[in-house]
Amino acid sequence: MDKIEHIGIAVKSLESSNKLFKQLFGKAHYKIETVKSEGVNTSFFQVGPNKIELLEATKEDSPIAKFIEKKGEGIHHIAFAVEDIEQEIQRLKKEGFNVLNETPKKGADNKLVAFLHPKSTNGVLIELCQDIK
Amino acid sequence: MDKIEHIGIAVKSLESSNKLFKQLFGKAHYKIETVKSEGVNTSFFQVGPNKIELLEATKEDSPIAKFIEKKGEGIHHIAFAVEDIEQEIQRLKKEGFNVLNETPKKGADNKLVAFLHPKSTNGVLIELCQDIK
Repeated sequence: MDKIEHIGIAVKSLESSNKLFKQLFGKAHYKIETVKSEGVNTSFFQVGPNKIELLEATKEDSPIAKFIEKKGEGIHHIAFAVEDIEQEIQRLKKEGFNVLNETPKKGADNKLVAFLHPKSTNGVLIELCQDIK
Repeated sequence: MDKIEHIGIAVKSLESSNKLFKQLFGKAHYKIETVKSEGVNTSFFQVGPNKIELLEATKEDSPIAKFIEKKGEGIHHIAFAVEDIEQEIQRLKKEGFNVLNETPKKGADNKLVAFLHPKSTNGVLIELCQDIK
């Protein structure tokens, strides 16, 4: 794994959280993107080599809506950048991790993504992501 | 803020989680450090320009023990590297953030640290950290 690509934070309102995180970082988000398949609106902030992704649910049954209902707003996942996601999925499966989607799917920000179940990683939802070339 | 310096993850057992995260990253932690004032044992993994800090409570009333009791194992905080922590604290106070310790304190890994209350940051406990020069 090459670096923390981003940290995903579940928020109730992208509009008000975009303002809040602009105050925090001293600069605004650089893009907004809707991922229909996941039921989320996202915004991205660049912090040096890393990003913060804010996630707002677009419908009541989206994973982010359920997360906020259960745990409140807060950190939802950590994403690590990988060079070759297929190879990394195979390696992690062999190590005993529970890979939620063995076939990578299209995520936000032009990435192929896969998730590890938090039960196999100390309660942390981990995303692997690879640039789509 | 310059980058994500580290993500702090609360774990029940540093010993078993060190093994787990070694499997995850394909390499071992590079150090273990006890921070008596915070009641924690910590271990650090390097992931490119970023770090993962595992946190194990050394006593029942430590903040990490309370966190795990309430929420279970998982992500505890995000730390951002800053050049000048005193200046950043003043800037964030002016922006209306709730800075938990206005005088930076000595943290793990040779850092001066300060925390922002999660109530002012969408449920995310944010640490600022500056290298001690």
